Amino acid sequence: MLIREATTEDWPAIWPFFHRIVAAGETFTYPTELGETEGRDWWLQVAPNRSVVAVGDDGTVLGTAKMNVNHLGNGAHIAGASYMVDPAYAGRGVGRALCTYSIDWARAAGFRAMQFNAVVETNTYAVKLYRSLGFDILGTLPEGFRHPAEGYVGLHIMHRRL
Amino acid sequence: MLIREATTEDWPAIWPFFHRIVAAGETFTYPTELGETEGRDWWLQVAPNRSVVAVGDDGTVLGTAKMNVNHLGNGAHIAGASYMVDPAYAGRGVGRALCTYSIDWARAAGFRAMQFNAVVETNTYAVKLYRSLGFDILGTLPEGFRHPAEGYVGLHIMHRRL
Repeated sequence: MLIREATTEDWPAIWPFFHRIVAAGETFTYPTELGETEGRDWWLQVAPNRSVVAVGDDGTVLGTAKMNVNHLGNGAHIAGASYMVDPAYAGRGVGRALCTYSIDWARAAGFRAMQFNAVVETNTYAVKLYRSLGFDILGTLPEGFRHPAEGYVGLHIMHRRL
Repeated sequence: MLIREATTEDWPAIWPFFHRIVAAGETFTYPTELGETEGRDWWLQVAPNRSVVAVGDDGTVLGTAKMNVNHLGNGAHIAGASYMVDPAYAGRGVGRALCTYSIDWARAAGFRAMQFNAVVETNTYAVKLYRSLGFDILGTLPEGFRHPAEGYVGLHIMHRRL
């Protein structure tokens, strides 16, 4: 697996699983009907933010990460990041590789900490992954997310120093 | 005191204290060098978000509030809000009136809760005000804000149900 800069040429490979994940409405606080062009502009970040893809040996896009400044002004030393893994390639460590990559990037870029603003508490796979990579739950917004199957569930704010 | 919709005609009255507060860099996670036009576009929200001003009996703008959707998609039932009071009119209950107004607006608009994403912990006046109006601290981002005088201080995430 290789992690490299995402470009607009990668978008046709990202969009199918991006769309599937966003439309499911179970893990992201994105508009569930987010369109392809708007989604692309949303996900493919420009400097100082970054977007990357994880690709397999044959070049297949397995997953993607977005890394960004989380707060502005005198909070601009706090990074944020989001990850999406193609469900067809789940369980192969793609999410872990992307998260680790983003932590390393943020540290190298001079950020002092990384904060995830809205981790759906029923997304236990992600919560467990982030915890294993050193993130703690700072707090949980009660009933912050209306899960299509579970109803109102909490949104964790997660954090780790870099 | 009257609270009414803010318009672009109000901006020349808002900008001097908005600029003073933002440039001081002590209470907002806004770029401290935010310019007048960008600041206006930042602060004066369009539907479904809103911006209001609190005005005195003679029409003087005493303070202003911005009310917005805080999360998107399946988190869109969470509101956010920000407040600025002209320091020349501090201590007259303007901030309390604006905060109360925004809570009432958010409840009437169908939001289920209000979340403040970044309340600087040294802004004890604001923290006390929000607590008195029913907000709790969900968590604190350690060293989330580089205060120009105090150094790195925490950013509270505050919340109240509506």
